[in-house]
Amino acid sequence: MGRIICAGLGPGDPDLMSVRADRLVRTAQHVAFFRKKGRSGQARKMVNALLAPGAMEYAMEYPVTTELPFDSPAYIECLARFYDEWAARLTELARTRDIVVLCEGDPFFYGSFMHLYTRLQGRAEVEVVPGIPGMVGCWWVTGQPMTWGDDVMTVLMGTLPEDTLVERMQAADAIVVMKTGRNLPRVRRALARAGRLEQAWLVQHGTMPQQQMARLADTPDEVCPYFAIVLVHGQGRRPEMAE
Amino acid sequence: MGRIICAGLGPGDPDLMSVRADRLVRTAQHVAFFRKKGRSGQARKMVNALLAPGAMEYAMEYPVTTELPFDSPAYIECLARFYDEWAARLTELARTRDIVVLCEGDPFFYGSFMHLYTRLQGRAEVEVVPGIPGMVGCWWVTGQPMTWGDDVMTVLMGTLPEDTLVERMQAADAIVVMKTGRNLPRVRRALARAGRLEQAWLVQHGTMPQQQMARLADTPDEVCPYFAIVLVHGQGRRPEMAE
Repeated sequence: MGRIICAGLGPGDPDLMSVRADRLVRTAQHVAFFRKKGRSGQARKMVNALLAPGAMEYAMEYPVTTELPFDSPAYIECLARFYDEWAARLTELARTRDIVVLCEGDPFFYGSFMHLYTRLQGRAEVEVVPGIPGMVGCWWVTGQPMTWGDDVMTVLMGTLPEDTLVERMQAADAIVVMKTGRNLPRVRRALARAGRLEQAWLVQHGTMPQQQMARLADTPDEVCPYFAIVLVHGQGRRPEMAE
Repeated sequence: MGRIICAGLGPGDPDLMSVRADRLVRTAQHVAFFRKKGRSGQARKMVNALLAPGAMEYAMEYPVTTELPFDSPAYIECLARFYDEWAARLTELARTRDIVVLCEGDPFFYGSFMHLYTRLQGRAEVEVVPGIPGMVGCWWVTGQPMTWGDDVMTVLMGTLPEDTLVERMQAADAIVVMKTGRNLPRVRRALARAGRLEQAWLVQHGTMPQQQMARLADTPDEVCPYFAIVLVHGQGRRPEMAE
């Protein structure tokens, strides 16, 4: 009997993978990962230099549905079937071998693997290896501490309604907004209404060679990929500097 | 000229340190870490099996102030002087050698190193290596995904006033409460008022050999160390399971 091991790969730089994930990836003989059709897949790219020669690869390609809106019941059903099928396939494969599933960031923090994880319960032995979340890599890039003292930090998705974003931003000291991309104009308006736009940073590809960081106020809406992260640092309580 | 390198060590299990932090710790010849007087220090303990023989150790011992309340101006001034002195000492040491400062979790996420980091700007070359935050290790222990879909996640300190805790908990899907310890009775009351007590978990020493996890409702207030973390998982939007 084999196992299904989901390795959290961290924010992007392979040097920031955990020792355990690094060892798993280097010795894996069967590797699965999500990707969009026609793309190489971010998680797969991250392990380019690590995978053993001859490792079998299983690309779990998201169903293409240009005609269906992202949040329509039909698309959600289509996605559910996709996860059902891969859960069945991984269960079958794990009867005779270990399979490492590659996941960016931390698998339990907004990760796609969770849709497989819930489906695999009781059917296969599943192990998850935590990773540094993408947002941690992004705030590291800014070179500023994210939270201090009693700061309240709130993590928001750019897909939320504008009024919800404003309310949650007003109640937080430190703010993280994920799933930006096409939602960036709404995120920007919400930050402005909450009085936080001037302190906001936009970080793309944090810890990767192509990483970019800029003040959100200086960045046009058009250039924002879905996985870019908006950050507002906390300025919490701290001992005064005596010098 | 040497550098001051703060290595985020992650949640506890040395196997969850990043490849970069692991390499730094194993090759370090000068290692500094915070600890309480008379204790060995959590960060130092985590690298017991990794440190090179003969590495020089610098224990940065927090000032003992049994007579001063934790949040009094006098204690805060005392702490500020402590950070000032160690910033000066590390700057001096870094003139001729590299020094690795050990920090649990992620240094930029409620980390003590930040008080040195701000003081070291412009005086020495400083590098920070991110780590898996302690909360990620704690939700990993629960074996349940922490956040899904559009979940809002809020990180709170148990030191906050009860009414603030209640408001922030009500506005969140997933909740993390750090700095629990003696604040646990107030955290518990706040969760009950927010209608979330039944879903709350208390995790201690997540990913360490002595890790413990229990429903908060089943746990008495007395047994809670300061670094135990309370978690309420998000139950956000997700594709239905078709099977």
